[in-house]
Amino acid sequence: MNLPGQPPKQGARSLDPHLRRYAARTAGMTASEIRALFAVASRPEVVSLAGGMPHLAALPLDSLSAEVADVVATEGLVALQYGSAHGVPELREQICDVMALEGINAHPDDVVVTVGSQMGLDMVTRIFCDPGDVVLAEGPSYVGALGSFAAYQAQVVHVGMDADGLVPEALREAIASVERSGRRIKFLYTIPNFHNPAGVTLAVQRRAEVLDICRAHGILVVEDNPYGLLGFDGVTYPALRSTDPDNVVYLGSFSKTFAAGLRVGWVLAPHAVREKLVLAAESATLCPPTLNQLIVSRYLSTHDWKGQIKTYREAYRERRDAAISSLEQHMPLGSTWNKPTGGFYVWVTVPEGIDTKAMLPRAITQRVAYASGTGFYADGLGSRQLRISYCYPTPERIREGVRRLANVLKDEIELHETFGPTVGRAVSGPHSPSPDTA
Amino acid sequence: MNLPGQPPKQGARSLDPHLRRYAARTAGMTASEIRALFAVASRPEVVSLAGGMPHLAALPLDSLSAEVADVVATEGLVALQYGSAHGVPELREQICDVMALEGINAHPDDVVVTVGSQMGLDMVTRIFCDPGDVVLAEGPSYVGALGSFAAYQAQVVHVGMDADGLVPEALREAIASVERSGRRIKFLYTIPNFHNPAGVTLAVQRRAEVLDICRAHGILVVEDNPYGLLGFDGVTYPALRSTDPDNVVYLGSFSKTFAAGLRVGWVLAPHAVREKLVLAAESATLCPPTLNQLIVSRYLSTHDWKGQIKTYREAYRERRDAAISSLEQHMPLGSTWNKPTGGFYVWVTVPEGIDTKAMLPRAITQRVAYASGTGFYADGLGSRQLRISYCYPTPERIREGVRRLANVLKDEIELHETFGPTVGRAVSGPHSPSPDTA
Repeated sequence: MNLPGQPPKQGARSLDPHLRRYAARTAGMTASEIRALFAVASRPEVVSLAGGMPHLAALPLDSLSAEVADVVATEGLVALQYGSAHGVPELREQICDVMALEGINAHPDDVVVTVGSQMGLDMVTRIFCDPGDVVLAEGPSYVGALGSFAAYQAQVVHVGMDADGLVPEALREAIASVERSGRRIKFLYTIPNFHNPAGVTLAVQRRAEVLDICRAHGILVVEDNPYGLLGFDGVTYPALRSTDPDNVVYLGSFSKTFAAGLRVGWVLAPHAVREKLVLAAESATLCPPTLNQLIVSRYLSTHDWKGQIKTYREAYRERRDAAISSLEQHMPLGSTWNKPTGGFYVWVTVPEGIDTKAMLPRAITQRVAYASGTGFYADGLGSRQLRISYCYPTPERIREGVRRLANVLKDEIELHETFGPTVGRAVSGPHSPSPDTA
Repeated sequence: MNLPGQPPKQGARSLDPHLRRYAARTAGMTASEIRALFAVASRPEVVSLAGGMPHLAALPLDSLSAEVADVVATEGLVALQYGSAHGVPELREQICDVMALEGINAHPDDVVVTVGSQMGLDMVTRIFCDPGDVVLAEGPSYVGALGSFAAYQAQVVHVGMDADGLVPEALREAIASVERSGRRIKFLYTIPNFHNPAGVTLAVQRRAEVLDICRAHGILVVEDNPYGLLGFDGVTYPALRSTDPDNVVYLGSFSKTFAAGLRVGWVLAPHAVREKLVLAAESATLCPPTLNQLIVSRYLSTHDWKGQIKTYREAYRERRDAAISSLEQHMPLGSTWNKPTGGFYVWVTVPEGIDTKAMLPRAITQRVAYASGTGFYADGLGSRQLRISYCYPTPERIREGVRRLANVLKDEIELHETFGPTVGRAVSGPHSPSPDTA
């Protein structure tokens, strides 16, 4: 403890003179394994299957450039000025049109525009989670969500998935277990469509059941749906929000259907919750960037945005196919993966005894990067899994990357068979718990 | 208490079925009086002296439009893509050049780009403040800062100001008083230049003393400096950060020197703190909008940004003069105010017995809006004060607004002299504590 009025003591073990000043929540703030990789993985000789960057080359930059110029020239006094924390009214109306594609019937008043859906997630956690509150989330789950939950000192309890997404029986068991422990569950965080990182989709027949379970237990559902319109078979699933408007908070984003660098996302919330969200957002950023909202609004009204989504879908389907066929061609026996029907990711399980986190530095030496599975769990699981993102590289690069990855794995298996599993683990050091390979 | 597993009970007094689910911090999230006003104050017949919107009409929209178009056309694949939570490297270098004008010698690595300096403030509070921690702040202080502190359940203790800014002796007394109470002070939040809302500037000879006091007590200084380059006499004061790099976290913004709607601000922090800030920012928004960073970077490299600041200064000086001369001409006896030497605001004290919050609805009826003083205090003070923002309206409108305000005040004084102070208070209801007029 640092007593009030005393200067902070500088411990012999730390060079940070501010160490004793930090809030307790900073203990949960650790560098994401995935993002720590980006610098090295972005070297041109490395095929990065690690990041989730959209395939922007599919965008019509010339016509966008002209539209953006016109927004500044004709609406500059609004675009460059402060706006409301709630968001630009016209954009909120258009967002309702976008959500209508998923069966959602919403009022623009209940939409809050955010700086990417990451901010939506952060705001939802801010208004609902006290330290120690439990958030249920699929295991694995989106790494950015785990970061937000940690920032508010919420405890994540993972719920199992299978090929049809979240398993209702596992959800019941997780709820019962948390209730027995006397802790309080604030919400279920779920990515029902083309899951990040698992690539699976919640089966339509399970959706009502998941909603019923949560409703029966007084648990809010936070539905994160950045990839919902990116189904490769032309199928758009009905949002959870479409059938349960009072108990679902929906998070949407233009990052994957338009442009990530604009950072325009939104939250659709029950009316009473929406008021709290606007207040929280105001204290966080005052307002989302007005220019970016007007650009998205203009884009939706002047461009064939549905056609653009179709273009994206086709690009991602081609890349998914490249990833899957290369996996089938090259991966060593004992590896398994799913075939996603939309979105950006394939989730791969490697042969027993291999630690994907420990293997990563050797993979990068072999000029391929991926995201190891442990980053997607709050509880140390995932060391036998890895995520392949096929969204950004060309199909040719994806095939080359998967080939390199398979070679690294084969070398690793050979090492493992010769020297045993400890070889793989020694590299990653004390931060590599690997309960599911033990 | 809502027991785990039980659906939330709907109280008879509330229509919000989620009421029992909210985090404790939401109790401190209340609608800012100032922002609640914006809707009504933005009607064209009302002269709004309430908001702090910059005078964007001074911007060269045509050349900006062309630059923005070029950013999208030639750098679109970067501008519209995800970036790092740290911010675009080239912009961070240019930010160091901007800060050099205030005597700051900084490394670009220690700059973190944020979604406006409001996000910087929120991130700084996030990493330093546990619930119950004390933040010292001038009284009055920036309403958005009070909102962030409340969101993290920090307790604000105000420190008195005079015409030379924060009073060192008052700072010593506040620290001693908090220390006696056993609470822990995390930082002093201060706006040294052209204070919002008080309009005053911390005298140069006091700066070292304030820094010394904080350092001696192990208290970090958070220096918020959005207006520092907007001094009307051509004077730019040395930043607190310039002489104490290890104990000052500096918040900067392009909102007042360029364009607020881009939401580009920054934090300059001691190196160890900077790492925590980047992690916190990543969990909050993943990254600030890349497009906006490239626009600011382009603007700084191709436009005469120092000339633009000079243009802004001249516009604001003219408006300050309009405000001050009208106050002198019209305000009733017993009113006092300061003459700011930079920035956006005049802080007015009205005659005893007048409650500025209670008076506001009547002022709006008379087609003038202002910000009542209570919004700038965490402790209920300020009911005899009001803030006039002269940044946005034309000088002519400012004069008309001040004339209307003076008339409202005169009517109020007459009512007060006839019926006593309760008339003024009855209107604002139970939310109008007014200890300094009692």
